[in-house]
Amino acid sequence: MAVLCRPAVAVPEYVITREDTLAIARQLHADHPHLPLVLRLIGNTGVRKRHLVQPIARTLEHPGFEVRNLLYVEQAKKRIPPVVGRALDNSGLDVGDIDLIIYVSCTGFTMPSMTAWLINSMGFRPDTRQLPIAQLGCAAGGAAINRAQDFCTAYPEANALIVACEFCSLCYQPTDDSIGMLLSNGLFGDAVAAAVVRGTGGTGVRLERNASHLIAGTEEWISYAVKATGFHFQLDKRVPGTMRPIAPALRNLAASHHWDASALDFYIVHAGGPRILDDLSAFLSVPTEMFRHSRATLTEYGNIASAVVLDAVNRLFAEGDLADNARGLIAGFGPGITAEMAVGTWRSGAVDTPSATALKPALSTA
Amino acid sequence: MAVLCRPAVAVPEYVITREDTLAIARQLHADHPHLPLVLRLIGNTGVRKRHLVQPIARTLEHPGFEVRNLLYVEQAKKRIPPVVGRALDNSGLDVGDIDLIIYVSCTGFTMPSMTAWLINSMGFRPDTRQLPIAQLGCAAGGAAINRAQDFCTAYPEANALIVACEFCSLCYQPTDDSIGMLLSNGLFGDAVAAAVVRGTGGTGVRLERNASHLIAGTEEWISYAVKATGFHFQLDKRVPGTMRPIAPALRNLAASHHWDASALDFYIVHAGGPRILDDLSAFLSVPTEMFRHSRATLTEYGNIASAVVLDAVNRLFAEGDLADNARGLIAGFGPGITAEMAVGTWRSGAVDTPSATALKPALSTA
Repeated sequence: MAVLCRPAVAVPEYVITREDTLAIARQLHADHPHLPLVLRLIGNTGVRKRHLVQPIARTLEHPGFEVRNLLYVEQAKKRIPPVVGRALDNSGLDVGDIDLIIYVSCTGFTMPSMTAWLINSMGFRPDTRQLPIAQLGCAAGGAAINRAQDFCTAYPEANALIVACEFCSLCYQPTDDSIGMLLSNGLFGDAVAAAVVRGTGGTGVRLERNASHLIAGTEEWISYAVKATGFHFQLDKRVPGTMRPIAPALRNLAASHHWDASALDFYIVHAGGPRILDDLSAFLSVPTEMFRHSRATLTEYGNIASAVVLDAVNRLFAEGDLADNARGLIAGFGPGITAEMAVGTWRSGAVDTPSATALKPALSTA
Repeated sequence: MAVLCRPAVAVPEYVITREDTLAIARQLHADHPHLPLVLRLIGNTGVRKRHLVQPIARTLEHPGFEVRNLLYVEQAKKRIPPVVGRALDNSGLDVGDIDLIIYVSCTGFTMPSMTAWLINSMGFRPDTRQLPIAQLGCAAGGAAINRAQDFCTAYPEANALIVACEFCSLCYQPTDDSIGMLLSNGLFGDAVAAAVVRGTGGTGVRLERNASHLIAGTEEWISYAVKATGFHFQLDKRVPGTMRPIAPALRNLAASHHWDASALDFYIVHAGGPRILDDLSAFLSVPTEMFRHSRATLTEYGNIASAVVLDAVNRLFAEGDLADNARGLIAGFGPGITAEMAVGTWRSGAVDTPSATALKPALSTA
């Protein structure tokens, strides 16, 4: 049964604090009619600092889509291999053991996918399956975990490597000054994360069931405008309220596994912003403390898109006090608006007794 | 066991013949130092006509990346639903039966993926999994089939819908005049294709085993330069020779299934250009006639990227004289350079006896 092993995460060396962000917003948008609101929104994100691939001054420049995309590739090639190496070490596997690489990133675009470069440069087998996903945004972290589970369900001897590479700062658009954009400028950060999903063996979260849920009629709420200047992130002010329709989907998934979504041992969700965590806490009747790993990611790194769930899972491992078969939930949220959700149990490696409801692979509706 | 049902395909109403293409090349590139070579290459593609989403004059204009991408979305929304409807009809399933939509396209970029729009507008279930793939280029048709097989292997009661939407003409770059680009301008066409992979039941190609193969060190051979003007296709002159290393991978996949790749009953491959078909015929010791479906796609529609394999599979169905359990091979080729390959057998629907080697799902190296 598929086990999500401990992720590896790296954030870049250039740090921008909340105070820096507020100062920049005051300076660049002094005449903005809604500056006080923007400053309040940024102040309330819960983000204390973020990490960027470039110094702040260069981050604020827009050298053109082409140069930025080349920078994405350069930074990806520099920063991904050590993270992948650590993720492999964490799983007890080697490059030769990987059958599928799922590469998720919505902040740069390449064809061929970075998967081809990874295979060539890191020595993965030439028959490694390549699954690049560029269009699921922040939900892609959850989607990657779920598609890895599906793959290992089909081929129990197989292993999948997930790589989430998000350099959100390379999508900064200086000409955009909608409130949603200015908030986003204070919210998103850069990071690289990787994790192995083992089909057999391993220590970590045994992935027992997954589901996807699209909230009807919300396609425009989180989107890219694709322009000559690159990807322009567009955020609707209704987005923070989306946990209301998503919470029932999480409940349904847990219920299909004969679990109560309010009574699990761990909760790892995409920390898109603080209200997501507060609302989920309320709607699922779970103490806010249960979302501490996701909140820590948001506080320390900002919204690092598809990498959030992997970073939060890493914090779950770091805390290190889960009992065998502890029950939990992992969910990514992103454009669509889509939730990619999974339920699973902790497996220490010594013990391997999936929960009774996990024995037969089954699709869940949510 | 996963069965690829009959695809549905639609090509747009604006037709450009080889003669039109040659006349345009002569007119636009009269001073090009290699015009005679370009004309000879275009003349030798084997493409008789192609279908475009716009009249030729408008196709030759570049209204900017933003406008083009919006046009991609507009055309996709107009042209995909009827094709999906026919693919569902062909499979005997309804929108409510689909558990996964795999959307492949490298000629436009959206976030959210078109999968969200399809679910909302065509009434698919909100829990339908979304798998958009934008970065596998022409190999994505094969990849979609293979990932659908994996999914149905994991969940035998599940069904996957594949949608390949390629409007290659929207990536025309009037400022590019390398020989590879001018050849490409005479090679690629527009099309929409869709097909259902049923986990249980259905008439079509029973998907028994799949594999992927990356040719080492060829990342630069087929690629996009990402610029303010959009995606610029870059084709290396060594690409037509890539069947030499890919043929052994096809042989290995067949051999892992205890089959001889030279002695199959049908061959459906990505018809990137005429040499691919001629070379495969030679390297696999198979009569050229065995590639007639792929060749017909190339002749009638040009290289329609990820849609080629689905269109060629549709022609296989149309010919309609396969015996139950006839053995065959399906392969997409694209950037990486990557081959996504599958072997399977014909299933009429009345009979369901997978080949003996197909009973246990297994990963193959190739």
